[in-house]
Amino acid sequence: MESINVTTGAIYGSEKIYVEGSRPDIRVPMRQIKLSNTIDDEGKVEPNPPVTVYDTSGVYTDPAYKVDIHKGLPKIREQWIEERNDTVVLQTLSSEYGKERYRDKSLEHLRFEHVNTTPRAAREGSVSQLHYARQGIITPEMEYVAIRENQLIDRICENYPKDLGNPMGANIPQRITPEFVRREIAEGRAILPANINHPESEPMIIGRNFLVKINANIGNSPVSSSISEEVEKAVWAFRWGADTVMDLSTGPNIHETREWIIRNSPVPIGTVPMYQALEKVGGRVEALTWEIFRDTLIEQAEQGVDYFTIHAGLRWHHIPLTINRVTGIVSRGGSIIANWCTTHKRESFIYEHFEDICQILARYDVAVSLGDGLRPGCIADANDEAQFAELQTLGELTQVAWKHDVQVIIEGPGHVPMHKIKENMELQLRYCHEAPFYTLGPLVCDIAPGYDHITSAIGAAMIGWFGTSMLCYVTPKEHLGLPDKNDVREGVVTYKLAAHAADVAKGHPAAAYRDYAMSKARFEFRWRDQFRLSLDAEKALSFHDQTLPEEGHKEAHYCSMCGEHFCSMRANKQFRKALTEKD
Amino acid sequence: MESINVTTGAIYGSEKIYVEGSRPDIRVPMRQIKLSNTIDDEGKVEPNPPVTVYDTSGVYTDPAYKVDIHKGLPKIREQWIEERNDTVVLQTLSSEYGKERYRDKSLEHLRFEHVNTTPRAAREGSVSQLHYARQGIITPEMEYVAIRENQLIDRICENYPKDLGNPMGANIPQRITPEFVRREIAEGRAILPANINHPESEPMIIGRNFLVKINANIGNSPVSSSISEEVEKAVWAFRWGADTVMDLSTGPNIHETREWIIRNSPVPIGTVPMYQALEKVGGRVEALTWEIFRDTLIEQAEQGVDYFTIHAGLRWHHIPLTINRVTGIVSRGGSIIANWCTTHKRESFIYEHFEDICQILARYDVAVSLGDGLRPGCIADANDEAQFAELQTLGELTQVAWKHDVQVIIEGPGHVPMHKIKENMELQLRYCHEAPFYTLGPLVCDIAPGYDHITSAIGAAMIGWFGTSMLCYVTPKEHLGLPDKNDVREGVVTYKLAAHAADVAKGHPAAAYRDYAMSKARFEFRWRDQFRLSLDAEKALSFHDQTLPEEGHKEAHYCSMCGEHFCSMRANKQFRKALTEKD
Repeated sequence: MESINVTTGAIYGSEKIYVEGSRPDIRVPMRQIKLSNTIDDEGKVEPNPPVTVYDTSGVYTDPAYKVDIHKGLPKIREQWIEERNDTVVLQTLSSEYGKERYRDKSLEHLRFEHVNTTPRAAREGSVSQLHYARQGIITPEMEYVAIRENQLIDRICENYPKDLGNPMGANIPQRITPEFVRREIAEGRAILPANINHPESEPMIIGRNFLVKINANIGNSPVSSSISEEVEKAVWAFRWGADTVMDLSTGPNIHETREWIIRNSPVPIGTVPMYQALEKVGGRVEALTWEIFRDTLIEQAEQGVDYFTIHAGLRWHHIPLTINRVTGIVSRGGSIIANWCTTHKRESFIYEHFEDICQILARYDVAVSLGDGLRPGCIADANDEAQFAELQTLGELTQVAWKHDVQVIIEGPGHVPMHKIKENMELQLRYCHEAPFYTLGPLVCDIAPGYDHITSAIGAAMIGWFGTSMLCYVTPKEHLGLPDKNDVREGVVTYKLAAHAADVAKGHPAAAYRDYAMSKARFEFRWRDQFRLSLDAEKALSFHDQTLPEEGHKEAHYCSMCGEHFCSMRANKQFRKALTEKD
Repeated sequence: MESINVTTGAIYGSEKIYVEGSRPDIRVPMRQIKLSNTIDDEGKVEPNPPVTVYDTSGVYTDPAYKVDIHKGLPKIREQWIEERNDTVVLQTLSSEYGKERYRDKSLEHLRFEHVNTTPRAAREGSVSQLHYARQGIITPEMEYVAIRENQLIDRICENYPKDLGNPMGANIPQRITPEFVRREIAEGRAILPANINHPESEPMIIGRNFLVKINANIGNSPVSSSISEEVEKAVWAFRWGADTVMDLSTGPNIHETREWIIRNSPVPIGTVPMYQALEKVGGRVEALTWEIFRDTLIEQAEQGVDYFTIHAGLRWHHIPLTINRVTGIVSRGGSIIANWCTTHKRESFIYEHFEDICQILARYDVAVSLGDGLRPGCIADANDEAQFAELQTLGELTQVAWKHDVQVIIEGPGHVPMHKIKENMELQLRYCHEAPFYTLGPLVCDIAPGYDHITSAIGAAMIGWFGTSMLCYVTPKEHLGLPDKNDVREGVVTYKLAAHAADVAKGHPAAAYRDYAMSKARFEFRWRDQFRLSLDAEKALSFHDQTLPEEGHKEAHYCSMCGEHFCSMRANKQFRKALTEKD
């Protein structure tokens, strides 16, 4: 294998800490930002408590850990899975394709060295977190998530504002308990994606009564990129804050690329299995069969993929509804199925086999992300009959999946003008029985290629506030080409800010305290603290240093924007003093 | 004077056209984007009509015009102003400071060569567009604006969606007539900033029943930048789409810098006169007097500034309301006044002299932008008592200004979490009698320095949809330093997309057709048309070319994001054909 270099080392101004749960092997990673003291004009010193923030970056940012991409990450969940004693270790891979790839000596130079050829599967039925939650069991994963969502909040904030602004009646408690986590999962309002064959993953939760999450898409395309580039893109995405990563590879060696990514991923990995199924038939849509698709699901489930996007709600009779659209069907998965149905003149085999699919997913605890194959590809097509007809079918399928104890999220648009965003959320909650919504943006206009991380962040922040649980990022390269590393960073940070803005507007107790700490640092000219508290500390620092590079300016009571005389923050000190004297 | 280089030449893929009004000297510039033909699989050719878009870039993008920064722009409004026969040409400058600067030989190397020392002033009372509108007069400026807002819309679009999504009951007609423009101005719901001493400006309108406008701030600070840099920043801002530019210079030679900018500006120029007044007293706030401020207003009005930000609504008794804020007063103008009031222990002289101020503004048709000195500087301070107390005062002052036939806009925040944005718009409409709202963002969270063009674009798009008439841009450097040229471009384009998203959501008839044309080009793989229709064609092109640089790829029916097999757009052709065969 070519050498793989990934970015490691502490995040600027942050220290990795671990918070232990009820047992020593529940160790929840967090990022602690130590702040400097406030020193007033009389020299009185007041310490500022550290701010602890949610941390998706894995051991890559832990200087105490020696990263070895060729070995993969520690299997932190292995013991918990074993203890449940409801899975078996298989003697061999179940997927024909998986076996074939493993036997192929010519792939050895590409292959992750420690491929697991004896994956786990349920002894019977479902081993999903939903299955346990419904039985009233609080798993270590659920406890982990509860600690993670709280972020030591009781230790660090007292007097910041806690207005509740959620317009869709979300119900976020002041303190998230393991029992609250369990109940949200049991009722289908949240999922905890955790394939039993991805024991390396650090548990996280997706649901509207928790912090809004973001997904970053990576993956090569036939035109561009290599395995090592994709692994580094994934690690890079974790570092900036991606809560899940979807590997959307469509080029060569999808199987091997995915193995490298999963073994090195502390976050849940999602895929669109149809992409690989299509590669297996040489791109000839008409040659796709249930058998090939089924084998692909098993192949990927046994590698450890945590959620599958499956466009099962796109039915044959929906397709004519798209004929008069400006941009037809823009979902890759959706267009494959539409092509298959119209070629064979019959119902989608994905829809027809949905119960079979659920049985497979339940065996490994793969969550299903019901794909919106008919999402609008431009604002003119938003909220049309095709889109909402599919959404209704997704609602039916949600209940089928729940019957099999399979965790479900629902994918959403796409391109939607601002005045049509709320209707998407309302109908999704109604049709899909409050299963979590997972949207791509939405982009609020079509005319800004090169800036579509921004057009989509506008829609994403709004729909996140309305109740969407996870936001799929869009990079500046959207509509133009495959994103590179810098695009991934721009996309992730942009979505972190959109998700955070949504959390603030929803009144999530673990959101606004960071803004408070930042604003206090700003008012007190604690420049280094401002950088440390930023979503992208390195960029904030480098922007500041473009005009005032000297170290001394990081203590200065002004910046290059207004200069000394015109600094309003500075002026406050003067008139606050005068006001006090008056009294 | 050092040499000044500004960016000129046509915008990529666009042609400058002029649309004549009822008289030959009404020539409204527009940017016409010619599109290539649609060619279907059978080779049938269908032409796509050109798309004409609003154009703020002035003659700088007209290859037929020879730009000479040292001469300044053509005075397109001079004849109209003269014809009205209600102004006099003064024998000399009225401002003591203006005279002094002109007499100072040491400044000659800095000075614009053709300084006008005989400005115009009203013969008596007001010469504002509001004054004419109230009398039922449709000025050439109003007709110009009506043509400009329509953008040849009847010629270019028929079947694009026209949903009306404006939540605050705006009333945008399908066709904007000169009489509609007049009525909106007469009723105070819109302003047409047009200082009689800035005859170079191309008339534009700011009001919620028109296209949402954006402002770009430029200006040097004591720490950085020069005259030539600021002139180029201004021209650069026009090019990317700034509808107005505020010169916020606080450094040396403010007077001379402003002259260069105004003489070369086709868009209205705004300033905050207090900044210069403070420079005149060496930064000593306590030394500020009404006389110095008054002379500054006259000095700038006679140079041709089109609107003044004046923080007249910040009253003495408001200041204690800010004491418990996290970031106090963050407006530069606001903090100056707060400091003055607390030092002198008396009411703001700006508030007390507001009638005198209006009399000056009316003489030159300078619009007043009532500044929000108490805007929140962090989300914790949003929508507090201080902010809304000042807003109520701004409402009172609006009526005072209207009494003097002075055009008024109201400035707004700032930092506001999403769930508190709508209240800002509602109260502004109620307190300020529907005078246009002009907001800075608002930023929806505080923790993303380096990305605050984005955090603010989220709030800007939302409040624009709700009814804000003009959005003041924020650049990526906000909170960190003075923006450079690239920051100006990022800021302007980001705000163009936010304003456009708002126009689309409001159902403005001249908005969504461009999205429609873009989406059609996208679906038909007309790559060059996509670049041409983009808000930033150059960036879209360069991003595309990063992965597929060859010319042939601009005809390709796929891109590097998905590659050939996985292109959903491509797939539509296949199944649409299959569907037709079925019938």
